[in-house]
Amino acid sequence: MKAGNMLIAQSGGPSMVINQSLAGAVLAAHKLKAVGKIYGALHGIQGILDENFIDLRQESVATLEAVAATPSSALGSVRRKPTPADCQAIFKVLRKLDIRYFFYIGGNDSAETAHIINQEARAEGYAISCFHIPKTIDNDLRESDHTPGYGSAAKFVASAIKGDDLDNRALGGVKIDVIMGRNAGFLTAAAALARTDADDAPHLIYLPERTFSMEQFVADVKAVMKKHGRAVIAVSEGIADADGTPILAKYTNEVDSHGNTQLSGTGALGDLLANELKSKLNIKRVRADTFGYLQRSFPGVISESDAAEARQVGVAAVKAAVVDNMSSGSIAIKRNKGEPYAVTYEPVPLHKVAKETRHMPAAYINKAGNYVTKAFIEYARPLVGPLPPCERFAQLKKH
Amino acid sequence: MKAGNMLIAQSGGPSMVINQSLAGAVLAAHKLKAVGKIYGALHGIQGILDENFIDLRQESVATLEAVAATPSSALGSVRRKPTPADCQAIFKVLRKLDIRYFFYIGGNDSAETAHIINQEARAEGYAISCFHIPKTIDNDLRESDHTPGYGSAAKFVASAIKGDDLDNRALGGVKIDVIMGRNAGFLTAAAALARTDADDAPHLIYLPERTFSMEQFVADVKAVMKKHGRAVIAVSEGIADADGTPILAKYTNEVDSHGNTQLSGTGALGDLLANELKSKLNIKRVRADTFGYLQRSFPGVISESDAAEARQVGVAAVKAAVVDNMSSGSIAIKRNKGEPYAVTYEPVPLHKVAKETRHMPAAYINKAGNYVTKAFIEYARPLVGPLPPCERFAQLKKH
Repeated sequence: MKAGNMLIAQSGGPSMVINQSLAGAVLAAHKLKAVGKIYGALHGIQGILDENFIDLRQESVATLEAVAATPSSALGSVRRKPTPADCQAIFKVLRKLDIRYFFYIGGNDSAETAHIINQEARAEGYAISCFHIPKTIDNDLRESDHTPGYGSAAKFVASAIKGDDLDNRALGGVKIDVIMGRNAGFLTAAAALARTDADDAPHLIYLPERTFSMEQFVADVKAVMKKHGRAVIAVSEGIADADGTPILAKYTNEVDSHGNTQLSGTGALGDLLANELKSKLNIKRVRADTFGYLQRSFPGVISESDAAEARQVGVAAVKAAVVDNMSSGSIAIKRNKGEPYAVTYEPVPLHKVAKETRHMPAAYINKAGNYVTKAFIEYARPLVGPLPPCERFAQLKKH
Repeated sequence: MKAGNMLIAQSGGPSMVINQSLAGAVLAAHKLKAVGKIYGALHGIQGILDENFIDLRQESVATLEAVAATPSSALGSVRRKPTPADCQAIFKVLRKLDIRYFFYIGGNDSAETAHIINQEARAEGYAISCFHIPKTIDNDLRESDHTPGYGSAAKFVASAIKGDDLDNRALGGVKIDVIMGRNAGFLTAAAALARTDADDAPHLIYLPERTFSMEQFVADVKAVMKKHGRAVIAVSEGIADADGTPILAKYTNEVDSHGNTQLSGTGALGDLLANELKSKLNIKRVRADTFGYLQRSFPGVISESDAAEARQVGVAAVKAAVVDNMSSGSIAIKRNKGEPYAVTYEPVPLHKVAKETRHMPAAYINKAGNYVTKAFIEYARPLVGPLPPCERFAQLKKH
């Protein structure tokens, strides 16, 4: 163990359990003599650049535990991709504060940021452990079986689809639900966990991993309407055409600092698809909802295993950095073979997690590209856990 | 008590607790010897016109209880306004089946339907009790202090805003949340129940009861951004300009069978407002979510008092019709004076509940027309009850 101060920050889209990782890391660090001060940077690297810090040693255990159970990023977040000049500036601040342990909680962009800062420190011969702590509701980090944040967001999606199924049974027509996930369809796929009986929603699922054809979509919906007299459809916000252009990108121009089109926080994709169905199929009642930010923030919808694992990746990162003296890395969640469901936490090299995203394996998507397979259900079910209210729901026997 | 068969149906938008009213009425009728067969019409008056019935006596108590706890309309619903010819046809079916007790669960349009059928029966000299059982998440029925369905939907809205507040604190900018309520702002106003501290969301609330001015909206948001550095805004889907034209109606043409513009099931209003703020205030991050159908169907978000009252209005309607032998009416919920919160159920004439809607009283809206008053909070709090997960949430002390 090298003695030094610790700095931790949160980045990217918040989740229901990202504060579990923060509490896990800080409470684990409390117990280790090598760790001096514990700084929290407000709003990720922006807080480091602005030297906007709080003293996490002064937060009581009770506060940290309450914060752990609170959605969103308690330190504040940021969507800023650091330039090389930013990284040098960040590194200067870390050196000034004698930071020897740096933890960055976020997705693959955050892993990339930790990776760049780590390289900067190596080049300068400055001894620091740079660790990425995984978080993303998109479930798209490489090396991990799944990511903290996914299970809870997936639970929201499955629950919402269950309620929507009942609503659609009452009034009929077509309901389109647009679900988050720019490049990976895992969250949209979780809609399938709502299905118990063969005629339950969702009836169709469209993922960014398969080329979206408007003609095929219209034909699929027509077939479902013929079979069930109604249709509930789960669509990923990131569906794209054969060229890889997001369907929505043709209609909007806003890009974020990573050069990405804004897909979330707008109802445009759902409306676009609804209008297409109305005009092509002459169905009177077509409605679209975009689940939006509720997927990552709706109070109380938390997967127990997700919350526990989010806590443990924070603990594991501190152990790897401080106790095991590893100079850098990320923490991957590996699923143990066999039943019952269990996982182990494994340090992996930063560059293996940085930048690129993981997609839904082909084995999880049906041949037609409009639903998931049983293999996906078996994969996802333990991550989400039971949907207690839904399991008590009933329909009339209708004698 | 006159002996005869009973028919019950559900109409309009589903809610989280409309099946409580169904179970309440059916289980109450079970105990009364005057009631013969208990028919359920599928999809409201459409099921009567099509003679599409189920035998509700054959549903077990266990099924009815499970259905009571299930969101959406278990009998199916309909949005069809009966023509005079429809009413004559409906009446013929009722006579053929020797229906002497007719119960229609729904909003003011459903009360109007029950009223017309009742008048038809009187004109023909046919003895029947026609009762409306109130249901609407909009809380806009006259005669009642509040309506079954509102408390649970309001709980969803307040919870969602609480989660959204935490999300917005992390990433900043402006968040617009569009909430259901065509003519009445009660559901949008419930967003205010999310506020505990002075800087909590929502920061602005726009209701259909006040003229919406785009210029004032932009100025309001600018002021909030200056004060808090962020803004979470609750907007009713039904906001309208000085002429009473819905803001959204300028951008969409779809109307339902009641001649109303489609306001729900589209993200267009949120996107419209977001684009306005982006262009006028030059704020980079502006996002809009439309809470949509989740407000009335999301599993597990139920106000306990709402569920109990929804059950009791069903029981009260059967009592009024069968035991007290009243020929027609609706059941109003009256709030008892003083503490603790308690209500009584009172039969009221159908015509007093039919057609017209109730609006937010002026005392519930602030002078500027962009927030609610303390009087509204005191009114709404007992209807929604506690928000258990939110009450355990915490933020870092940030030393």
